[in-house]
Amino acid sequence: MKVGYVQFRPKFGDKEYNVSKMIDMASTLDAEVIVFPELANTGYVFKSKEEIVTLAEPYDGPSIKRMQEFSKRKGALLAFGFAERFGDVFYNSAAVVTPEGEVKIYQKVHLFNEEKLYFNRGDKFFTFTWHDTVFGVMICFDWIFPEAMRTLALMGAQIVLHPANLVLPYCQDAMVTRCIENRVFEITANRIGVERGLKFTGASQITAPGGIVLHRATKTKEEALAVDIDPGLALQKSINSYNDLFKDRLPSAYKLS
Amino acid sequence: MKVGYVQFRPKFGDKEYNVSKMIDMASTLDAEVIVFPELANTGYVFKSKEEIVTLAEPYDGPSIKRMQEFSKRKGALLAFGFAERFGDVFYNSAAVVTPEGEVKIYQKVHLFNEEKLYFNRGDKFFTFTWHDTVFGVMICFDWIFPEAMRTLALMGAQIVLHPANLVLPYCQDAMVTRCIENRVFEITANRIGVERGLKFTGASQITAPGGIVLHRATKTKEEALAVDIDPGLALQKSINSYNDLFKDRLPSAYKLS
Repeated sequence: MKVGYVQFRPKFGDKEYNVSKMIDMASTLDAEVIVFPELANTGYVFKSKEEIVTLAEPYDGPSIKRMQEFSKRKGALLAFGFAERFGDVFYNSAAVVTPEGEVKIYQKVHLFNEEKLYFNRGDKFFTFTWHDTVFGVMICFDWIFPEAMRTLALMGAQIVLHPANLVLPYCQDAMVTRCIENRVFEITANRIGVERGLKFTGASQITAPGGIVLHRATKTKEEALAVDIDPGLALQKSINSYNDLFKDRLPSAYKLS
Repeated sequence: MKVGYVQFRPKFGDKEYNVSKMIDMASTLDAEVIVFPELANTGYVFKSKEEIVTLAEPYDGPSIKRMQEFSKRKGALLAFGFAERFGDVFYNSAAVVTPEGEVKIYQKVHLFNEEKLYFNRGDKFFTFTWHDTVFGVMICFDWIFPEAMRTLALMGAQIVLHPANLVLPYCQDAMVTRCIENRVFEITANRIGVERGLKFTGASQITAPGGIVLHRATKTKEEALAVDIDPGLALQKSINSYNDLFKDRLPSAYKLS
């Protein structure tokens, strides 16, 4: 399965430009699964509720519709962050659209910093199957909570789609640990550039079970890249004749509530 | 609080030599808390149940007694791995002895590889308070399970004592992630040398909240070192005005059983 990412520099508030850029860059990829950054259609640094109200879209809004159309044309599953309007409230969400016309929405559970001023937090993780492979979604700051990817992996995720707008330098190395402990694939699509004074750190990454970094992008350039992976490897949780990282867990010894 | 580790090359089966070496090396340290490797008094590579039967000791056995006597003389808390006989069964355990005469035993929950042939697994994690600081213990391979340190941290551990006999090269970087996600201090005391064909990887490490590596030892030399830390820093789980890494958790969204 060919999986990739698009790393780019969104223009705040210019959804027309951003979605066009996403589609243009993804068009160059030979990939069946493509991940884009968090809040990719709007940009990240909201400064007022009014900006959210103006820019957010429901799950069947114009940005999603354009991406759906591209998904169908390209024959690829797309995962991208967008500002979601859901009735009267707003979420920092990721949409997954498939060529078959499905739309799945993950609402970010762990909001970072001033995101809390503008967005409600989501309350669940989920997985879904596409082309006989189980996928999960998390967004950016979810990385720092080991429970996020662990939950997805225990629910069966083989590939974790991870749209991000990272400003800290720790996530990429942490993803190595996450893929060692969970033996999944993950695709972190990060953005680049400075937006309203906030600098984003690029270095989008594709990581394999065992913590193998298949690819890490530059910190500063717009880039799109795909690699060919075997998702079946993520079903194998054993690391030697005696240890299976999932069967060896002892939930009765954990106090995690 | 001055905390340190002893990294050395145990001689398999020579408990007299090993405990003397541990005491000699620890004597050179200006430290109140000293961590030693896993199975430090016996060595690691058991080849038969008979060897375990011969070398294992109960929690009040001679190795522990010698370490208790040294703890009192030194005025330091000591944490070290030993092969524990507990009635008819055996554990890969860590003893914590204090100058006040306390002994606490942690029985390794996540056994690695052929350890399963010789040891029973433990079934609980615990924390304890000493000098107004909360400590937790885990052993070696526990590192790969995020639930281990997470459990200790959620139980209040400020400093995680981590005796190890590492053969893989991943733990030290993973400890950076663990200390980012849990904001605790951790002291990994690893051994060095080749024993019965198995090579151990040294690089004992002391890590601070935020994933700051305060010290990493060489991979091949016997070394003892201590650093001065403020355990109070581990009580602070917030990373900015909006995010507290423990309060931001959403256990209802996690499926970890």
